[in-house]
Amino acid sequence: MSLLDLDHDQRKELAERVRQDYEELKSKDLQLNLTRGKPSSEQLDISQRLLELPGTEDFKDADGTDVRNYGNLKGIRDIREIWSELLGVRYDELIAGDASSLNMMFDLVMYAHTFGTQDSERPWNQEEKVRWICPVPGYDRHFTITEKLGYEMLSVPWLDEGPDMDAVREAVKDPQVKGMWLVPTFANPSGHTVSQDVARQLAEMETAAPDFRIVWDNAYAVHTLTEEFPEVIDIVTLAREAGNPNRFWHMTSTSKITFAGSGVAFLNTSTENIDWYASYAGARGIGPNKINQLAHARFFGDADGVRQVMRKHASLLAPKFNRVLEILEAELGEYDVARWTTPSGGYFISLDVIDGTAARVVELAKGAGIALTEAGSSFPLHKDPNDRNIRLAPTLPPVAELEEAVRGVATCVLLAAVEKLGA
Amino acid sequence: MSLLDLDHDQRKELAERVRQDYEELKSKDLQLNLTRGKPSSEQLDISQRLLELPGTEDFKDADGTDVRNYGNLKGIRDIREIWSELLGVRYDELIAGDASSLNMMFDLVMYAHTFGTQDSERPWNQEEKVRWICPVPGYDRHFTITEKLGYEMLSVPWLDEGPDMDAVREAVKDPQVKGMWLVPTFANPSGHTVSQDVARQLAEMETAAPDFRIVWDNAYAVHTLTEEFPEVIDIVTLAREAGNPNRFWHMTSTSKITFAGSGVAFLNTSTENIDWYASYAGARGIGPNKINQLAHARFFGDADGVRQVMRKHASLLAPKFNRVLEILEAELGEYDVARWTTPSGGYFISLDVIDGTAARVVELAKGAGIALTEAGSSFPLHKDPNDRNIRLAPTLPPVAELEEAVRGVATCVLLAAVEKLGA
Repeated sequence: MSLLDLDHDQRKELAERVRQDYEELKSKDLQLNLTRGKPSSEQLDISQRLLELPGTEDFKDADGTDVRNYGNLKGIRDIREIWSELLGVRYDELIAGDASSLNMMFDLVMYAHTFGTQDSERPWNQEEKVRWICPVPGYDRHFTITEKLGYEMLSVPWLDEGPDMDAVREAVKDPQVKGMWLVPTFANPSGHTVSQDVARQLAEMETAAPDFRIVWDNAYAVHTLTEEFPEVIDIVTLAREAGNPNRFWHMTSTSKITFAGSGVAFLNTSTENIDWYASYAGARGIGPNKINQLAHARFFGDADGVRQVMRKHASLLAPKFNRVLEILEAELGEYDVARWTTPSGGYFISLDVIDGTAARVVELAKGAGIALTEAGSSFPLHKDPNDRNIRLAPTLPPVAELEEAVRGVATCVLLAAVEKLGA
Repeated sequence: MSLLDLDHDQRKELAERVRQDYEELKSKDLQLNLTRGKPSSEQLDISQRLLELPGTEDFKDADGTDVRNYGNLKGIRDIREIWSELLGVRYDELIAGDASSLNMMFDLVMYAHTFGTQDSERPWNQEEKVRWICPVPGYDRHFTITEKLGYEMLSVPWLDEGPDMDAVREAVKDPQVKGMWLVPTFANPSGHTVSQDVARQLAEMETAAPDFRIVWDNAYAVHTLTEEFPEVIDIVTLAREAGNPNRFWHMTSTSKITFAGSGVAFLNTSTENIDWYASYAGARGIGPNKINQLAHARFFGDADGVRQVMRKHASLLAPKFNRVLEILEAELGEYDVARWTTPSGGYFISLDVIDGTAARVVELAKGAGIALTEAGSSFPLHKDPNDRNIRLAPTLPPVAELEEAVRGVATCVLLAAVEKLGA
């Protein structure tokens, strides 16, 4: 049964019930929040031992270097080896930085903007126009970077196996198209994962710009919600084999593995790209926080140690995601007024409501004390052309709050729908 | 007695002796290094307890926020309060970042370059030409940043109380002069400190550029070699009172207090500048490593805790600096072929040799297995116009090695001098 199939009286009856539900919801004076893609306290507790690591007896890395002193722009061997095994990528093509891969992405784009890449004819800031491919819905903080730089953002739709490759191939015929954002695994917010086939197409495709770069932001590379880990594509090797060795900046980090904002970020890319990056990162500073890198290496032990931590996260997160999906199905399933993703990893559920009602849903929820991510925030310039998409972040709230919040959201979705359909 | 006062025979005799000394020096097959402005292991041991902090029971900051999670671009209250007390600056004008103030300086200049400051007519990258004042000798990594950006660097001499203000005042009449590097306390490499009077002149002077900025890099704010701590000038307040509130980016960090490269950096500047910085830093990332900030706050306790740590450093460093000065005096004093600074803080001794011989001294030292910082490295583009200055870094080597190295350097200085004078 769809809302559209109801006759006038049925629709009116539903509208009355939904309005009543909403008034009840408001009367509860809730203060709930579904905006934050942050780990919960229980998740953070998994890594509690890190707070006393590396410990007072342990300050030499695998090369025998005192990590308490300056140096080593590429990060210490101990943590790079673990991540190179975990991702299945070459050690010499992986460097470890400070906490945030977002920091590194910002810097990479800024260096290309200001100085040009080694493949650029000129710095991007000397181009008349720079255009950037943005698979949507996507990660708001990606789009903020290209917005700040005044790049024209070209939305291409996310399909089940990755971005719409016909649209991507068309876009890269323009030499002013210099780059592309992409979260290849359990994407923010859809939870979709790029297939091997699409990855290969991205590695192989011809681009008019010789300095075209894909920010392959593998933020959720190991962030499974199941027993299975996704296969990590060695995208840098794919690209090298395709004759485009410098195409990808493959990023990842320990965010949402250990402590958010206090971990270790990684850049996996060609050694030529690493040298280029280091030539500016080395002007920006002397090296990353190696003590934190050593602490992380000791905490994990090896790649399997990372996977064990991720299994603990999954055991905390999977029930939350399941409850959200169950409630959405129970409250909205019969009315055909919304579709949502059922991710097997990552941090978000992407909820599509009836076109033209997403902003209204967020407004209604706010009126009932439920904070939702601003409608449109998963699109360049915060503009969802269909006013359709809402990003739900189930990780942070306790289950009881989460359930209450999602039930409330369902009421708002229905109310916005009956308003829209004029009932 | 000066080398110049010697008659022909005396000079020849000295030359023979010095050549013999140098041959003996070479025969020792030394491997010594005076290049590195790094703390020694003993200094790092002072902060050993940090390696197990904050500890597994301690993860809330003074505002009750869980530091293990995302957020707080300005840094946690606990460490900002300690540094605001230590420096005597306003809490709301001080933010705490990641390890390196060099990182923050680079970012500040990059943001002004790419986006313009809030006082700029246009981003600096859209200026025909940007010029930058560089007091010399100065810090090589400062000059590297402005070199990478293609800024024209204007050398002005360091005098006893700060940069030559007549030269500075003349330079800032040019609206293309957008900024200035300055290490105000125990400057790298001279050890000089800017006086209150010069600081006030810098705060008050008129500049043609409305967006003129001074990077007031107070890297050695508390790095005394004596019982006394230098007075920290509240330069941001001075500038506000002078009607130029946004002029200074006052930087400092815990580098060379706790662990080099793994500490906390600080930016003290007007709240308007902080808002401007945060508008870009907030696109670059979500916040600094707050766990490391909490660990540092717990380690120090309060501002006096920082001073106690610095006294321990002084007790390790003062004997090293004293030995260097004694040896230079004993080996070179009578010949009047060199002058050197006698700093009461900081990390370096600046050695001026006979004009035109600095590069030769470094070459001779290298031939004898003693690594010295490249001649010219304390000048923009690595060019010392007088080929005169050599930076000595006494902190890292054990005393015995340090003594041997400095004696060797003295031999090289003398040899280069007699070569130059044609003996």
